[in-house]
Amino acid sequence: MKNKINYILKERKEKIILPEKLGFGQYFTDHMFEMDYSKDKGWHNATIKPLSEIYLHPATSFIHYGQTIFEGLKAFRTIDDEIQIFRPDTHLERLNNSAKRICMPAVDTEFVLEAMRELIAIDSDWIPNKRGEALYIRPFMFGSDPALGVRPSSEYKFIIILSPVGAYYPEGFKPVKILAQDDYVRAVRKGLGECKTAANYAASLLAANEAAKKGFTQVLWLDGVEQKYIEEVGTMNIFIHFKDEIATPKLTGSILPGVTRRSVIQLLKEWGLNVTERLISIREVIDAYDSGNLIGVFGTGTAAIISSVGLLSYKGKDMMINNGNVGELDLKLFNELTAIHYGEKEDTHNWTFKVEKKAIEV
Amino acid sequence: MKNKINYILKERKEKIILPEKLGFGQYFTDHMFEMDYSKDKGWHNATIKPLSEIYLHPATSFIHYGQTIFEGLKAFRTIDDEIQIFRPDTHLERLNNSAKRICMPAVDTEFVLEAMRELIAIDSDWIPNKRGEALYIRPFMFGSDPALGVRPSSEYKFIIILSPVGAYYPEGFKPVKILAQDDYVRAVRKGLGECKTAANYAASLLAANEAAKKGFTQVLWLDGVEQKYIEEVGTMNIFIHFKDEIATPKLTGSILPGVTRRSVIQLLKEWGLNVTERLISIREVIDAYDSGNLIGVFGTGTAAIISSVGLLSYKGKDMMINNGNVGELDLKLFNELTAIHYGEKEDTHNWTFKVEKKAIEV
Repeated sequence: MKNKINYILKERKEKIILPEKLGFGQYFTDHMFEMDYSKDKGWHNATIKPLSEIYLHPATSFIHYGQTIFEGLKAFRTIDDEIQIFRPDTHLERLNNSAKRICMPAVDTEFVLEAMRELIAIDSDWIPNKRGEALYIRPFMFGSDPALGVRPSSEYKFIIILSPVGAYYPEGFKPVKILAQDDYVRAVRKGLGECKTAANYAASLLAANEAAKKGFTQVLWLDGVEQKYIEEVGTMNIFIHFKDEIATPKLTGSILPGVTRRSVIQLLKEWGLNVTERLISIREVIDAYDSGNLIGVFGTGTAAIISSVGLLSYKGKDMMINNGNVGELDLKLFNELTAIHYGEKEDTHNWTFKVEKKAIEV
Repeated sequence: MKNKINYILKERKEKIILPEKLGFGQYFTDHMFEMDYSKDKGWHNATIKPLSEIYLHPATSFIHYGQTIFEGLKAFRTIDDEIQIFRPDTHLERLNNSAKRICMPAVDTEFVLEAMRELIAIDSDWIPNKRGEALYIRPFMFGSDPALGVRPSSEYKFIIILSPVGAYYPEGFKPVKILAQDDYVRAVRKGLGECKTAANYAASLLAANEAAKKGFTQVLWLDGVEQKYIEEVGTMNIFIHFKDEIATPKLTGSILPGVTRRSVIQLLKEWGLNVTERLISIREVIDAYDSGNLIGVFGTGTAAIISSVGLLSYKGKDMMINNGNVGELDLKLFNELTAIHYGEKEDTHNWTFKVEKKAIEV
């Protein structure tokens, strides 16, 4: 049975006026996409409808047992006033990998991509047009059985919501302060670390809170076994720019396989730079710093794209990176990626997917 | 400002007829307790109302970032037709410990206990009266900010629902088969293992599914660092009955501090037995088995109370425990605990909390 999108559209008479300060994930567009899964019907009830509350029985399984996954990606309004999504195919592929890890059903990625495009087309007036602003796309799925008992749900709901978001750095590209610590562990190999599921974010809150109290923007996580190797930063992957190498932690199972991470690795390779994915100990980073071989440190993620690290601290040792300034390479990567996002530069990688503005007759 | 319970009660004319097979977490009583938290008001809106759906904005933070905790405890109808809850004070203390670990607000345990008793009193006709049956109580809390962004929510909802449950072993106390494996890790020290949060259950699903396909009831988890020490079983803590010692894994941070575990340790001590909380390697269990020093293995948990392990398997080695029969000590513990639950034996530990049948004027 072929899945088909049903449309229930909101009548909007007034013009959409976006707030001056969009922030992140504070505002949502008029519509959402929703579909249901059951064992006998598979995915069904695909509907684009006005953004509305979800009704859940209080025993709904994911509330108690955490069977929930999500993705985060962005659509941009290009300088030619076109709309394009950055690597939705890769994001949906990762969604299905996450689903598998916690016993959830896969989605038909082509169908979901189609639904995503339709949804964005319908709500395209919500896409901001200032540089740095974008439409954040949040697909998510959860187990919806209304019964207690630790087992995979037999029913699921998949939803996409859209949020116009501001520039991550409203005052310009600014280096962040991160704290490497071994008081808390986010994830461990053979666990859920590589799965984009709620569990990993719950695991990060207390450490992030304590770091924030000390003036740090985010936490640099160490591996859960030896607490020796760097893994990832809060909501980003991490890259260490050594004198003759740009290294990023290899995917051991406890690290989120970031789409921006993947894009950056590809760009660096194309630029002829020596980029590696390997184990990197915090000790190695400190030694490189002490011997003057640490050129820069930066994070990659959908929200910030590229984030320069100006200060890295570990066990009381404060390492000021590149005199606290934005690294040259960091900025070059940021500019390259944003040039692709906003259509200033040709997309030679087929990373962007266009959205037709009038995808359906409303 | 003192929190006060508001009542919106359902009018029920027909008599409650419980299904013959209650199962676990399938049926729910007429009412629920609910209260809200905000930074300025603290906990407020405490209400006992008809069981109803929760309305959530699709961006509600816990759906995405997993800030959710729960408890599971039971109320029993005694042989004298009284109603009593087993160790609610200890469960609510653990709830607050869980809350702290993931940056959630604590509840006033006395107030919540009062609300729990009122709720149970109102729905007391739902409490089954057959031996082995009980009223399962599920308090839970989640972050309810309607915004995306990885940070502790500023608003929360706390709910209690009640579910009449059947005997865990409808055909009598029956040994289970468990599989120790090192393909997956549930939790690691400094992570969320000791916190009763959704994350740990999500982390357990795939391993449990694969074990079930091989005919095992549950998974015996090994520690996440060395994958050498036994930690806990699916939904239970584990005890190893050696010839001259009854040992249970010590609480290293990755193990749920079970209330039944705690009760069993106390009982065993009172019975003059040598009970220890320590690291127990899977190798030590195998060696004890091989040398004839392994008397029994059993699990403890609110659902099953005590569960005899009849078969323990690790890397292809099947260990038939006590010839696959229920251990003498396991049965003695089960009988002792259930005698306290159902009021056949005096509660000398102050573990039970009575519920007055007409707590309020309805």
